[in-house]
This record gives sequence, C-alpha cells and structure tokens, in this order.
Amino acid sequence: MPLSTIPLAAMPEVIAVPSDLLARWQRTRSRSLMLAEPLSEEDCVVQSMPDASPIKWHLAHTTWFFETFILEQHETDFVPFHNAFRILFNSYYNGIGEKHPRPQRGLLTRPTLAQVREYRHNVDLRIAALCQHGISPDIASLLELGLQHEQQHQELMLTDLKHLLSCNPLSPAYWDAATADSAAAHTGAVSAKAEVAPLAWHAFAPGVAEIGHAGTGFYFDNETPRHRQFIEPFALASRLVSNGEYLAFIADGGYRNPVHWLAEGWDWCKSSGLQHPLYWQQVDGQWHEFTLFGLQALNLQAPACHLSYFEAAAYAQWAGARLPTEAEWEYAASSVPEALAKAGVALHPGASGPELGLQQLYQTCWQWTSSSYGAYPGFAACAGAIGEYNGKFMVNQYVLRGSSCFTPQGHARATYRNFFGASARWQMTGIRLAKSVPPTP
Amino acid sequence: MPLSTIPLAAMPEVIAVPSDLLARWQRTRSRSLMLAEPLSEEDCVVQSMPDASPIKWHLAHTTWFFETFILEQHETDFVPFHNAFRILFNSYYNGIGEKHPRPQRGLLTRPTLAQVREYRHNVDLRIAALCQHGISPDIASLLELGLQHEQQHQELMLTDLKHLLSCNPLSPAYWDAATADSAAAHTGAVSAKAEVAPLAWHAFAPGVAEIGHAGTGFYFDNETPRHRQFIEPFALASRLVSNGEYLAFIADGGYRNPVHWLAEGWDWCKSSGLQHPLYWQQVDGQWHEFTLFGLQALNLQAPACHLSYFEAAAYAQWAGARLPTEAEWEYAASSVPEALAKAGVALHPGASGPELGLQQLYQTCWQWTSSSYGAYPGFAACAGAIGEYNGKFMVNQYVLRGSSCFTPQGHARATYRNFFGASARWQMTGIRLAKSVPPTP
Amino acid sequence: MPLSTIPLAAMPEVIAVPSDLLARWQRTRSRSLMLAEPLSEEDCVVQSMPDASPIKWHLAHTTWFFETFILEQHETDFVPFHNAFRILFNSYYNGIGEKHPRPQRGLLTRPTLAQVREYRHNVDLRIAALCQHGISPDIASLLELGLQHEQQHQELMLTDLKHLLSCNPLSPAYWDAATADSAAAHTGAVSAKAEVAPLAWHAFAPGVAEIGHAGTGFYFDNETPRHRQFIEPFALASRLVSNGEYLAFIADGGYRNPVHWLAEGWDWCKSSGLQHPLYWQQVDGQWHEFTLFGLQALNLQAPACHLSYFEAAAYAQWAGARLPTEAEWEYAASSVPEALAKAGVALHPGASGPELGLQQLYQTCWQWTSSSYGAYPGFAACAGAIGEYNGKFMVNQYVLRGSSCFTPQGHARATYRNFFGASARWQMTGIRLAKSVPPTP
Amino acid sequence: MPLSTIPLAAMPEVIAVPSDLLARWQRTRSRSLMLAEPLSEEDCVVQSMPDASPIKWHLAHTTWFFETFILEQHETDFVPFHNAFRILFNSYYNGIGEKHPRPQRGLLTRPTLAQVREYRHNVDLRIAALCQHGISPDIASLLELGLQHEQQHQELMLTDLKHLLSCNPLSPAYWDAATADSAAAHTGAVSAKAEVAPLAWHAFAPGVAEIGHAGTGFYFDNETPRHRQFIEPFALASRLVSNGEYLAFIADGGYRNPVHWLAEGWDWCKSSGLQHPLYWQQVDGQWHEFTLFGLQALNLQAPACHLSYFEAAAYAQWAGARLPTEAEWEYAASSVPEALAKAGVALHPGASGPELGLQQLYQTCWQWTSSSYGAYPGFAACAGAIGEYNGKFMVNQYVLRGSSCFTPQGHARATYRNFFGASARWQMTGIRLAKSVPPTP
Repeated sequence: MPLSTIPLAAMPEVIAVPSDLLARWQRTRSRSLMLAEPLSEEDCVVQSMPDASPIKWHLAHTTWFFETFILEQHETDFVPFHNAFRILFNSYYNGIGEKHPRPQRGLLTRPTLAQVREYRHNVDLRIAALCQHGISPDIASLLELGLQHEQQHQELMLTDLKHLLSCNPLSPAYWDAATADSAAAHTGAVSAKAEVAPLAWHAFAPGVAEIGHAGTGFYFDNETPRHRQFIEPFALASRLVSNGEYLAFIADGGYRNPVHWLAEGWDWCKSSGLQHPLYWQQVDGQWHEFTLFGLQALNLQAPACHLSYFEAAAYAQWAGARLPTEAEWEYAASSVPEALAKAGVALHPGASGPELGLQQLYQTCWQWTSSSYGAYPGFAACAGAIGEYNGKFMVNQYVLRGSSCFTPQGHARATYRNFFGASARWQMTGIRLAKSVPPTP
Repeated sequence: MPLSTIPLAAMPEVIAVPSDLLARWQRTRSRSLMLAEPLSEEDCVVQSMPDASPIKWHLAHTTWFFETFILEQHETDFVPFHNAFRILFNSYYNGIGEKHPRPQRGLLTRPTLAQVREYRHNVDLRIAALCQHGISPDIASLLELGLQHEQQHQELMLTDLKHLLSCNPLSPAYWDAATADSAAAHTGAVSAKAEVAPLAWHAFAPGVAEIGHAGTGFYFDNETPRHRQFIEPFALASRLVSNGEYLAFIADGGYRNPVHWLAEGWDWCKSSGLQHPLYWQQVDGQWHEFTLFGLQALNLQAPACHLSYFEAAAYAQWAGARLPTEAEWEYAASSVPEALAKAGVALHPGASGPELGLQQLYQTCWQWTSSSYGAYPGFAACAGAIGEYNGKFMVNQYVLRGSSCFTPQGHARATYRNFFGASARWQMTGIRLAKSVPPTP
Repeated sequence: MPLSTIPLAAMPEVIAVPSDLLARWQRTRSRSLMLAEPLSEEDCVVQSMPDASPIKWHLAHTTWFFETFILEQHETDFVPFHNAFRILFNSYYNGIGEKHPRPQRGLLTRPTLAQVREYRHNVDLRIAALCQHGISPDIASLLELGLQHEQQHQELMLTDLKHLLSCNPLSPAYWDAATADSAAAHTGAVSAKAEVAPLAWHAFAPGVAEIGHAGTGFYFDNETPRHRQFIEPFALASRLVSNGEYLAFIADGGYRNPVHWLAEGWDWCKSSGLQHPLYWQQVDGQWHEFTLFGLQALNLQAPACHLSYFEAAAYAQWAGARLPTEAEWEYAASSVPEALAKAGVALHPGASGPELGLQQLYQTCWQWTSSSYGAYPGFAACAGAIGEYNGKFMVNQYVLRGSSCFTPQGHARATYRNFFGASARWQMTGIRLAKSVPPTP
Repeated sequence: MPLSTIPLAAMPEVIAVPSDLLARWQRTRSRSLMLAEPLSEEDCVVQSMPDASPIKWHLAHTTWFFETFILEQHETDFVPFHNAFRILFNSYYNGIGEKHPRPQRGLLTRPTLAQVREYRHNVDLRIAALCQHGISPDIASLLELGLQHEQQHQELMLTDLKHLLSCNPLSPAYWDAATADSAAAHTGAVSAKAEVAPLAWHAFAPGVAEIGHAGTGFYFDNETPRHRQFIEPFALASRLVSNGEYLAFIADGGYRNPVHWLAEGWDWCKSSGLQHPLYWQQVDGQWHEFTLFGLQALNLQAPACHLSYFEAAAYAQWAGARLPTEAEWEYAASSVPEALAKAGVALHPGASGPELGLQQLYQTCWQWTSSSYGAYPGFAACAGAIGEYNGKFMVNQYVLRGSSCFTPQGHARATYRNFFGASARWQMTGIRLAKSVPPTP
C-alpha cells in the first residue's frame, strides 16, 4: 500500500480543530513504536527485498513526513533534526529533492534504532508545541494526512516484517503462538475444525451508481471525484475463497495448466516455478503456512491469502467465475454499511462465520478487483510536492478493495482504493469472486 | 497488434456464403506476398527483437492459421504440408500444442523463403478446393477470421520490418523516397511547409452510452458484449499531436522532468536513457525520422508517432490534458461514422488537413487511451484452442483505438480494440488528447 | 578463436616476396566463398548468439581486414569501397574507430550477400593490382597475416554455422550425409562399430624446456618470445576422451555431483541446467549428436567434443586425472613433429586409430589446457591499431592447443595458442588428459 | 580471501601439542569479538552485497568451523548447539550438506547477535574441555587450521564492514579519526605532506627457482607441492603505486582510453561507469577516500588501494610496466625474509618510507599478480569434506601476494596465495609493478 494520494481536496476553507485529532494523532504515533516493541534492533534494520522496507525506515519515514510537510513549512526558525534525514527518509517525493535509493534502505545501520526513536520523540514534541495554541485548518489537514499516512505504514510494517521473518529458515514468530489463539478469539475467528459456510451469491440489479467518496470525513484524492458509473447486473460471493477451496485448485493442477492463466501470469508462474501461495510449505506431507505467529498448520477454513492478481485471476477462471470490478465491489459494499463497524485488527485473517450475507468485506484480506488503477473522471492533481504524485502510480497496478487484518482500526472505508502490481504476493491479499448475470429474457 | 480475439460469437447459426468472401480472401492472401516483394530473402528472415517477427514467419504463420483451424478440421484425408510446421509456426496457442519459442523465430533459416511461398501456395490451393462446392457457415466464419488475422499480420509486417531496417546504420528504405512523395499525395498528406490546423476541442455531453460492437459484420469477441457505460462530460482533440508540438515538449525538458511522468514510466525513461521518440535522430543538428522511405527530415506538421503509453501520458500531463478513455473515444468516433470511409493506406502518416472537425481518427496512428485492456461486462471465452485466448492478454496492456496508416483498408472500425504494453514504441502509435469538462453550475 | 595476435615480430627487415604467397592468398580467398556455397542467403545473414557471427559478416570482415590494413595504407588514391563498411565490419579494433556492436551483426540485412561478394571481388582485384609489380616486405607480412586471419575465420564460419543450424528444430544439414561417410573415410575415421584403442599414457621427464615459437615461418605474437619453462615430470594421454568414455561420466552422475566441479563451473552447470554436451540429444532413447551432416547417431568411438573448460575439468577430476598445462602439451607435441603432416580437414572429428602413440594432436578437437591465457615473459605489444590488441584478451580465458577438424590445412602448429572462456561450448573442443608423475624415490 | 585451502598435507604423523597453540587460539577467538566491539547489533547483521557477509555471520561461521570439524568428530556424546546452525553457517562445504544461500546471509535477524555470542562461548568451552587432557595431533592440526581460518575471517570482517559503512551516505567511521592519527603513527605511516621515495627497480637474474611452501610451520595446501619454475630475468618495483601516481593515470584519461585495458576490463569499466577507485569521492573538488576512520582527505603518499585486477593491469600498461607473476613475487620476497617481521596491523595502509629497498611487501595492500590461480604441479586434493575444495576455486581468479594492513599479525608469509576475481574491488588490493629485463647482449 504505497502512500498514494493526498487529501488537499479534503481541506475545507476554515475548520475548527477537530477535538479528537490530537488524541488520535498521539495514539497513532505511539502505536508505531508499540508494533516494533517485540523486535530486536536487528529485526528492525534489515530489508528483505526492494519492495519491502525495514521497520526502522518506516519509523523514520513517517516522522520525516511530519517534519517535512508540517514543521518545515510552519515551524518558526525551523532547523532540521538532521540534514541528511531529508534525503535518507524521503520515499519518492521528487519535489522534495534527492532520495536514498529504495533497494538500499536496509544498508542504513546508522542512524541506529535508538537515534530514530530520538528523532520521533523530537518531532513529536515540536508538533505538539506547534499545536498547543491552536492550529490552522491547513495544519490540521496535514496532521490528519500524516496520521493516515502513518496508519498505512503500520500495515506495511507488519507486512514487510512478515516477509523478512519468512526468509529465515528458523521461521521465527513475531508474536507468541499462545497469544495467537486469544487473538483469533478476539477477531471472531472460528476454530480450524468448524465448517465454513458455503459460498453464496448476492445479486445486484443494473443501474447508474455513484462511485467515489462523497466528501465527509477523511479520504484520499484518488477516491474522488464522486461520479456516475453504469453497472450491469452482477453477483458477488458472500465471502472470500478459503484455503480449502484454493487447495482444490492446486490439486486440480491449477499451477500447471495454462488454460486458467493470463498469458503474462503464466509466463511469470512458470519462470518463478510457483506451485502454491507465497507462505505455504509442506512439513512432513502436511500443508503449513508461515504467519506472524510462526509456522502454523494450514487452516482450511481461513481465507487464502498472499495471492497475486495472477493467481487470483487464474483461480477465478478455474472456478467458473471472475474477479469483481472495483465499482461492483464498492456498490455492493455500500449496501452493507454496518460491515465496517464489526471489523477488528488481527495478526492473521480468521475464517468466515456461518452467515450467508456479505462477509469479510473488511479487516480480513484485501480483495483483488479486475480494475486497473486509474483516475476517476475529472480527477485533478493538486499543487506542490505533496500533490506531485496524484496519479503517479496509475499504470500497471490493480485495485484492491476492503482492508486486511493488518489494517489499523478506523482506516478502511467502502471507497478506499489500494493497489499493487499483478505479481505482488507479500501483501495480505485474497480473492472474492464475482459473476456477470445474464439479462432475464 | 497480437492476434487477440476470436469471432465465434460472430458465427450465425446458418449463413449464406458471403458473395465477396473468397474474392477478399484471395486479395488478402496476395497482398501479403506483395508486401514482401521489395525485400530480399535476407530482409525476410531476420528478427530484430523478441517483440517483432521476421517477414517469413508472418507469411508462414498466417498460412498455418488456415491449415490448422480450417484444413485440419475440415479437409478430407488431411495431411499436413510439413509435420514440423505445426510447432514452428504456432504463435501462442497452447491448445494446439508445442510452440517454437518466440525470441527464436529469427533463427529459422530453414524452411527457406521459397519453401514458405510453396507452403502458402499449397494451402491456398487446398482452401480453394475446399470452398469450390460451397462452404458451411462455420468454415466461412473461419475464413473471415483468418482473413482478418492476416490483415493484422500485414500491419505487423510493415511494423516489424520498419524496426529491423531502423537497426541498420545504413538506414535502408523499404520503398523509394520518390514514391514517398506520391504516396503522401495519395493519402492527402499536406506539404511539410503547410501549417497544420490548430488543435480544436470537441465537447460531448454526459449520458449512458452503448459501447461495443452491435453485431453486424465482422468483429472480434473482445468488442462484445455491447453494454452500457456512463460517460461524464468530456472534450476530445480534433486531431493528433503533431511532431512540432511534441518537439516543444522535448524542448521544455519533457524527458528530464519527472513531474510529467507516471512513476513507472519515469523509471523506464531514465533507465533506457530516452530523449526523443523511437525513430528520431539528429543529423547535423537537424531532426530526422526513420521511415519506410529511409531517413527523412522531420515533418513538423505530421503526427508524432512511435510513442509509448508512458510518453503519451507524460505529453498529455505536460499539455494540461489527459488521454481519453476507450469509451470516450468510441463514443466520439461513433458520432462521425463518415470518418471511416475516407481512410487510406500509407507508409507514413500524413499531416492533418485544415479542418477543425474530428480528424485522423483512422489510418493515421493508433491512439493510446487511458483504459487498461480488460473484459467487457459479460464477456465470455469460447471453447477450443481458437477460443483459449479470450482475455488471455487482458492485463497490463493499454487499449489503442482508431487505426494506423499501416492498417489494411477495411480492417478498422469504431469498436476495434488494439492493445499493447505501456513501453511499446515500435508500433505506429500517437496521441489524441482529451479533457474532462467540469459541470456547468 | 578471436583474431588474437599480430605478427609484426615476424617481419624481417627485408624479405623476398614468398613465391607461393599470392597463390596461397588466392586459394584462401576462394575457399571462404566455397564454404558458403551450400548455403542460402538466409543461412548467411542470421546470427544465432552474440558470440557467433553471420557467414556474411565473416566474408565481409575478412575483406575489411585487407582493405583497412593494406589498401588504406598502401594503395595510391585510396577510396573505400563503402564508407560505412569501415564501421560495420570492424570487429574490435578501437584504434580504427567505431565498431558496429557485435550482438547486432545479424541485423545487417543490407549490404546483401551479393553486395558483400562484390566487395570481396573489388578488394581482391585491388590487392592483386597492388601486388602485380612486386610488394614490399611489409605488405607481404600483412598479406600473410590477412591470410592467416581469414583461415581463422574459415574455422569460425563452420563453427558459427553449426551453432545456427543446431538452433533449428529441423536439424538441417550443411552437407549431405552421404558425403559424410566419404568424408569420414577421407579423414581416416574408423567405423562406429570398431573398438577405439585403449587410452595409453606417455611419460615425459622433467627439465627446462624451450616454449614458444622459434621464429621460422608464420606465427602470431602471442607465441613469442620463445622462453624457458621448467617442466616437472608428467604423463599425457595417447588420445582424446571418446564419446563412450564421456557417456560413462554422465551415467555416473557427472552432471549432478558437485564434487567433480570447479565451484564456478558447478554454479554455471546448475543454473544452465546442463546434463550433456552441447549438441547431444536423445531421440527415442538413443543418443544423437547434431553435426554439420545433420543429426547423427552418437559414435561412441569418436572424441567427445563441444565441451566447455568446466566440463573438461570436471571429467578429468572424475577420471582421476587432470588437464595438461599448455607447456606440457607443447613439450609433448614437439616430440612428434610428424603428427602435423598427417592432419586433414573434416566436418566432424573422427575416432582415433588403433595406435598407442600420441594421437589426435591436430585436426580433431582443440584441447583444453589448465593454463590461463597470459603473456609469455618479455612479451611486448607492437605499435598501431593492428598491434593494439596484443594481450587484450589475456584474462579469464583458457588456452586450447592442437587444432580441430574445422581448422584449415596448414594453419596449425605445436606452438599455436587458441583461447576461449571457461563456459564456451560452441567451439570444436575436446579433452586430452594428463597426470603428474610423482618423483621416483 | 575465501577460505581456500586446507592443511591436511601439513599434518605430521605424530606431533607434540604446540606449547603456544591454545594460547594463540584463545587470543584469536577473543580478537574476533574485539573487532565487533565498536559496532551496534545493527552494524553486525546487515549484508551489503552477496560477496560480503555480515559480522554476525563471520562470528558464527568461524565457530561453526570448530563445532563441525572438531567437536562433531571428536567430542563424546556430541550434541549440536543448534540443529539449524549446521546449515545456516555452512559457507560452501557441499560435503557437510545443505547451505543457507550466500546472498541471504543478511536476512538472518535470528539468531540474534547475543545468541551468536552465546554460541561462541559454548563452543569455546567445549573446545577447551576437549583439550584439557591433551589433544591428538589431528585435533591440534584442526585447531591450527580453525585458527588460521578465523584469522582470514578477521580480515574479511574489516573488509566487509568497510564496504557496508561505505554504502551509508553518512560515511560513518568504525574507529574514531583521532585514533586514526595515532594508528597511522603506530604503523609508521608518514605524514601526508612528506614525499614518498621514488619508485626504484630491483633486478633479479634468471634461473630455476623453488616455489611453494617448504614444509615448516603452518601453510595451506594450495602452497604445495614446492616445485621448480624457471624464472626469466625481471625487475620488481621497490614499493606499491601511490595515490598520487594513480591520480596521474586518472588525469591522463586512464579510465577513458581503451588502449590501456584488457578487453573484458574495458567492457566492465564502461558498463560500470567507473572513473576512480572504489572508495574515492570528490568533496568540494577535493579527492577524499572512505576509510574505517570515515571519509578522509586523500593521502597522495599512501598506496592506491581497493583496485581491481582490471584497474591494476590498466595502470601497469599505462605506466609502461606489467604486473609480476606470482613466482616472480615469491622469488623476490624470499630474498628479503626480514620484511615479514616488520609488518604491523592497521586500519588503513600507510605510505612507504624513504628506503629504496623492497618495501610494502606485507601488511600494506595485497598485490595483484598476473598469475591465474591454479594448481601447482602435483597438487592433490585430500579426502573428506574439509578437503573437498582443494582447487575448487582454481578458475578465473587472480593470485594476490603479500598481505594487507587488515591481515592479522603472523598470518602472512612469502608463499601465501590469496585470490580474487578480476573485478573485485572491495578487498584491500594495490599494485606493485614489474618489468621483464631483456637479455644483455
């Protein structure tokens, strides 16, 4: 989930400082440190691949965001905490200037983790000082944006860490397996032995739908403008595809038969020698899955996750269905606004319950849509470095909807557009099936 | 223009053999050989890059198509012309079996060009024999499909040949420059000195449009089903971006400023060291362009061509506009059905005329749209090897509309969907700008 | 066999024009064309990999050599045949100026083969004209050098052509198989059924040997200066390793056991998925070998060829032996000067005879030595472009001794140093084993 | 300096336990930890490139060596410290079994540095226990080998760490710059302002020399058997090439002129965009060099270091000289046995003194020779996993002689053969020139 977009469109002319903003900001800042708590300095510095970043880098970059976009603009007598950090912790803002190359983020053994914590503390104090006599709407907007940005990186911290730990033959756990059970309990995950409810189809009638964010509360600009789309009749699956169902695809030669795959996906599958989802492995003939609790027996009821778009599309083809468009997903999700409230955070997605309604829309796995990530009609980039990237990523990426169990509470919404390339597997990504419904004669 | 799609949807239950089908088929078959006429055996065997194929391979593959999909199914006592050709000239049909690897098509010095001509002659005679007592609707459909397929490859022959010749420091011409002038005259291209008409904007009102082929005449299945799309108000440029206009982009540092580019496009631009369109080069300080007439002084009035999606998108951003969606393009083009008739074939695209109406929709350059190539709602793949590939290419490709001066007469239509990857430059691709129109208050 | 070296050291102050030089020069020039005789234009233009060059390029480059190093220097009112050829057909002489990139030699469909023949004819006439009133020793030396250079390229023509044809699933023959038998007869190859003589060991006593060319007749400068080397006692195998013997290595898991391999060789073997020599393949469970006669049943008596240094070293380790040093090889070969006379040219190496003496030193397969290609003590580069490359290739290459059945008659000698990288397989390369002999107590 | 070789040849039938062996062993084990003392956990876990290893990995692997080759063989009731370590810390011993992939050594955030220290402590105690009642000659030999092996890795620790720190834009120092001056003082380095003595030539007469280790004291098996080589007359430079001299090469366009370079070296130079030695950079127009003391102004008197073989050969060609063969180097070094005693350890090589005798043979920079790394005549691999690798690296590597300032005291000797690939630059490698001496008439 790259930081995609900017909320300048969300900035009202004049706002009262949201009463809860500072409190939410503080909680968010603390949570990042809390996520790193179970980790050693060594765990925090290493980068497992160019797509992933070290924990320490996430901690520094989210701080850099506040220093660069708020303090540098609004602090009297601004002096940077460290001159070099402007470059070291710039992710991709060409407008800010030079950037330390992404694949080399893991080479930064200095500054140390302790120094990065000090950096965080320093910037937090200066932000607090800036806010103590009230803040302008502009700063409030940037604070909200930085908070949302940091939430995105909190999800990435867990995602990138999972990849790093998975590269270690010792299969180390981020969190104790005993806690895993209680965590599962808290997120309402059912026991591995329970039967998952059969997949049901929810049909939707055709018509012109309003798609995109309507303008109340925070949103990223890629969710706007709200606009009209004609939606032909379709049906959406009640829940995500389970590990058990995905296993049937594998057993049926899913990874060996080109007929199910997009041509580019098949080339990728063959050249990568893929035979199963990213974190699956067999131990003594039994399927296991690497999780943040370490290596666990595969729960057949839980949703299949860490799947690429190519795998998701191949599964859907094999299953006689297809992936939904992002408009279909949003249209359907908007029909069950209550789904959002029930969502909780977890370190691994739980199985669906026995209900047949639309389940697992949020806080389970991000759900691939067949929609290439692009601009909504009338989308316009805003000015300055922060707005430099509107649409910068709108090519060769596919939209994911919903949210995952790694997504911080309160971060998701029906109009949210996440996006990744078609071969990305290290994100918490799963499959919700859709079908076109032929017109009744 | 990969062979993308199949017309089984186009097959009516029972048809009378179209009166002109055999005549068109014969003309099409002859034209392929005619295109190779000015070339030596050496020109016909070499492959300049994995994306391009040798002329000889095109001549053989288009023949293979008829042999495999018609003769093998319908000829009594079918015996293949040569056993190995089934593999050698299979492009990408997994359902047919093995394929000679695409990047090695240029290593096939045997069969010789003479033998491939013999292959063509043999299959042509057998097809004629099969047809002499009338043909079934199925065969008629396959004949039409093979004809359309061959037309696609005729365009590729010129496209791939141009790339091959461009790799030669001698800048050899496919066609004599003297002929170039008369060719330009024939296609209505104005003199390089004439002023091109200023770019005008054509506005379109919002509403639900019917998109996709309505079902009369030949079409590929990716053009179906015809379905509804809501189109927000937009405006479309009257003509393509000219070389002169594109030169202003270059002069303004277009290839050096990341702010105009999609992030992936910028990485590609930098790592490839791009500074101008594919076939441009400076000779003694003057811009020239490699064409099928050899190296020519750059005609500032003619449309900029051989541009990637990345370059097209960067230009549009720089120009304060955007690329159209494919629905917008089709909607607009449908409003000027007469445009199609005026189109002619040429070896290089001519400049626009003085008219301010929608110009250069067809037979000039394929026009990048911002639409990722995907399935229309309700799109369904058909059975068998020929249908195996419905949608197989529907990922990480962008739709091009219209047609180019290389496209055979009669091949284009408003609903036609061509597609290539975002970095493809060797195709005859240009830019038509679009704009969103804000709602009037 | 890149053109490695230059014979300026061989230029005496004043020489009489060698009586046979022009005759040999004419025969050599004619032979190059003769080698291309059985080929189509298509066969002559294609380049199968960056290491190999098209036949047409060889024909042009050898001509360029005479034009550049003789005519350009010595012809009155020199005008190049074609300006662009100076670049197009320069192999690697930085001193001459720009070079057409090696991997793109196969893209030159123009000049045509006919034009290259014309180029050859033109330069031949001009050389003849230059020589008709007698030539200076300098020109004589350059003529001899160009002749030797062309002989090297004649060997490469067959070598590169073999690789090209091997890439074609049709396994086309350069020469008719019927002729193969007679060719085999001519080269003394025994029938596939005959037993090859057992491998015998020839021991050599220690001492200071003179290594390098002594100065009579033509030689390349990398063969000089003649110098002293101390040679510890060793033994050399009487003949090359046969296909039958190599098959035993394969059967014993030779390609699967790292213990036999150099570390870099093993990495290369694994990543390339090697399981047998380059041109071997199984047809219906029987080993065959691609040859210039097409695909032939593997002759177990014939020497194993087209082996890389890595494979040669692995085989030697497996066989409890080692490769000889180049000094050992030269020292041993010098003891049988009569071996050279018996050598003949063939399109495939023949099996060894029943003799136990040192066999197959020449005109069979080039024989890998364990010696890295380096400068002899006191080696000095000469001046000018032609001498620019003395030693330029003296890194990461291994010396091969003897000659192959592709080597033109009269080209080989005991001091000749051929060299290729450790993974090169497309040359006609085989294995002669050696052993160190422990001192007798 | 990969662990190249094994001393089984050095194992006498029966030995008395060397009185100082255990003391040296203890000092060596302690020194490895001492080297890591100034570093954070983060510094110790990161791997900067596949060629380099993390400090933590070095600490663990050297321990693994004792556990695997001594304890596993000789400890009663051997139980491994941790089962997985057998794989994780195996460098390249196929005979031991699986290996964690080299490029992924930096992904091992677990075991933590603390756990690796514990591992070291545990194995040290068990080795001590094993030795307390006396040890067999076999164990004594293995202990000596493990000690020498650990010394090699101590040099690598500094070498790899230097590379890691150099990748950090903050240019962090391993050791305080103030200490740098005293360190320089301790190693006899002269002030940057002093003039370095002019380069003098030491001539050596021709003759048969004995090359290789004579058998007293420790040696690696690649130094044997001692054998005879004929050495033609040559001269050796009195000291290494200085930074000032190397700068003249750069100023003369050394990195832009192919005439100085080996062909492969030139390709590498161009494709890598090289313009100066690895750790050089300009700051405000002044040349600086990254060192373990951080970024320092370039000392023109100090030897040029971190040069590849390709750069060394190009410099030598430019300077009208050549690199010595390893036999020449050993022959010359043997003539000044006292040179070894004066050597000291330092974190950066010091400038040469005013003497004109053979200087800087040891403890300055490893010195490239023109000799490809190969087997001495009669070299034989020994049995078992530890001997599996005799000669395994003897291809495409060039021999370096002497030692560097990173080499532990007492580790170097005249017969020592270090080796690296021709493009390796991260080692402490410099240039000593040589010349062939023409015979006096």
